[in-house]
Amino acid sequence: MNLLFLGTSAGVPTKTRNVTGIALRESKGKGWYLIDCGEGTQHQVLHTKLSFHSLKAIFITHVHGDHCYGLPGILASAAMGGREEALTIVAPAGIKAWLEATLEATQLCLPFELAFICADELPSVAFANMTVATFTLSHGVASYAYAFTERKVNAELDVEKLAQKGVPRGPLWGQLKQGFDIELAGETLKSHDYLIFKNRPRKMVIAGDNARPELLRDACTDAQVLVHEATYTQEMAEKASAVGHSYARRVAEFAESVALPNLVLTHFSPRYPLKAGALPSIEDFRTEAKNVYSGGLYLARDFLEFTLDKSGHFREVADE
Amino acid sequence: MNLLFLGTSAGVPTKTRNVTGIALRESKGKGWYLIDCGEGTQHQVLHTKLSFHSLKAIFITHVHGDHCYGLPGILASAAMGGREEALTIVAPAGIKAWLEATLEATQLCLPFELAFICADELPSVAFANMTVATFTLSHGVASYAYAFTERKVNAELDVEKLAQKGVPRGPLWGQLKQGFDIELAGETLKSHDYLIFKNRPRKMVIAGDNARPELLRDACTDAQVLVHEATYTQEMAEKASAVGHSYARRVAEFAESVALPNLVLTHFSPRYPLKAGALPSIEDFRTEAKNVYSGGLYLARDFLEFTLDKSGHFREVADE
Repeated sequence: MNLLFLGTSAGVPTKTRNVTGIALRESKGKGWYLIDCGEGTQHQVLHTKLSFHSLKAIFITHVHGDHCYGLPGILASAAMGGREEALTIVAPAGIKAWLEATLEATQLCLPFELAFICADELPSVAFANMTVATFTLSHGVASYAYAFTERKVNAELDVEKLAQKGVPRGPLWGQLKQGFDIELAGETLKSHDYLIFKNRPRKMVIAGDNARPELLRDACTDAQVLVHEATYTQEMAEKASAVGHSYARRVAEFAESVALPNLVLTHFSPRYPLKAGALPSIEDFRTEAKNVYSGGLYLARDFLEFTLDKSGHFREVADE
Repeated sequence: MNLLFLGTSAGVPTKTRNVTGIALRESKGKGWYLIDCGEGTQHQVLHTKLSFHSLKAIFITHVHGDHCYGLPGILASAAMGGREEALTIVAPAGIKAWLEATLEATQLCLPFELAFICADELPSVAFANMTVATFTLSHGVASYAYAFTERKVNAELDVEKLAQKGVPRGPLWGQLKQGFDIELAGETLKSHDYLIFKNRPRKMVIAGDNARPELLRDACTDAQVLVHEATYTQEMAEKASAVGHSYARRVAEFAESVALPNLVLTHFSPRYPLKAGALPSIEDFRTEAKNVYSGGLYLARDFLEFTLDKSGHFREVADE
């Protein structure tokens, strides 16, 4: 599983950072998922190896423009590029209404189906290689985190436990083995509980704008990586009396409290320039978070790519 | 008057060309006008000296996404940058409805007023330094050209003609001198007809997507410059059976027929790469147009800037 940051700025683009867009690539094949789609995301994609043909789904965390204004353009370009396969969009209900209004007003006729799934119903969506669960955050508008867990994992059925539970040998076993939850006598049996993992399934949580990281306690169970906004440092957050956003220390304290192995901070206010020696500087986020967090800490920047390998080891991918 | 191209690609952005956006700068002061606003136009502006504070108005030629999907983002960024002055938007009616739907769906509250003027009523809009007239084109959807004529010009009143016509000395004379048309005894007197120009007022026509350049005959009267799409070369246009678009030869033949001094072609299909020696190449447009047009011919590219000086001389601005 690879994470590729396409935009890491909060609110407005800068010369070096676009607004939010994150690509999550499957470990097998070329399939990828896009989480948020700020204006200019399709332009960033042009500078990567990603193709709109292998895009499996788009997840939007919330309706603010810096997270969704690139959506109509990316759909138009996928259409002009010849995409015909249906595209899943998981997003708050407002996005569906806005997309419909946009397609009509700008006379954009897509040659592929949009399969819209409303995030407000906290869906868990299963793709061929990935299950994605939705969690509620705290922001000025409805905002969500998406937890991506790989489905095809190196695991054996826990035959003893299955027998104990009275699950009949056959298709139900197959479904559990493939990572699907099943219904048995009115009870939901979670695939996860009936597998013996050689490696724990890889899991990354990607959160939208959020003032209360502690809401992610359940989402972060068994996750190796959390991607979370840190729009400000603590000092600036107090000055800006930032409503609905997190600051570096607050996110890092939460990550420490749940013993999260890896934390990637992103969505930085444009007040923090990238250049060394600047005051304030983007490095202030690192200093502040490092003080309270002992796990692997990373600051995102545009086109930075990370890989999470089978054994759960997370690292930056060196530039080619 | 300066023209600065912010995007010159048709339909989709490429690595070297953004979708349509053209900045027209006044000769006096820092005021500028934006004609079309494809996705990523605000990102292009970041690499220029243009400021959202001195933006006088946005003109949209038609509703297709590659000409307007950057509009919500540019408004949001102007808002976050502290703009408070009302902003005029001249566009087809569909854009107004779409913007309203977008502001509501994405909870964008602008701290400045949007003064919307419907292009479908073919308005002539007067700004402090510029008058802009609207002309109808031929495309799949309603599409317009905007003719920009400078208003503060080096001219004297034609006192003899005014006396002949019986225009009383006073405020009416002042209005005519400042470039405003007046009403007298039920008749419209055009400022233009009662001035003796030292230099002819500068005039540039910027057209949207258009299959019939000949519709611009009136618009081009006394214009020094026409900016027109040439999505294809003739050969490709025939292959693509391009509906609603022009090809280089067709635009150039029209320009020759009205003895237009300068023609800038833009909105090139991404099929034509920039690099020398490629086949087809962007230079094919020059070859094709040069065969039938004897005026000043220019092919636009992103960040190319032109100036039209007082005496009507048009030239590229050398890179700084």
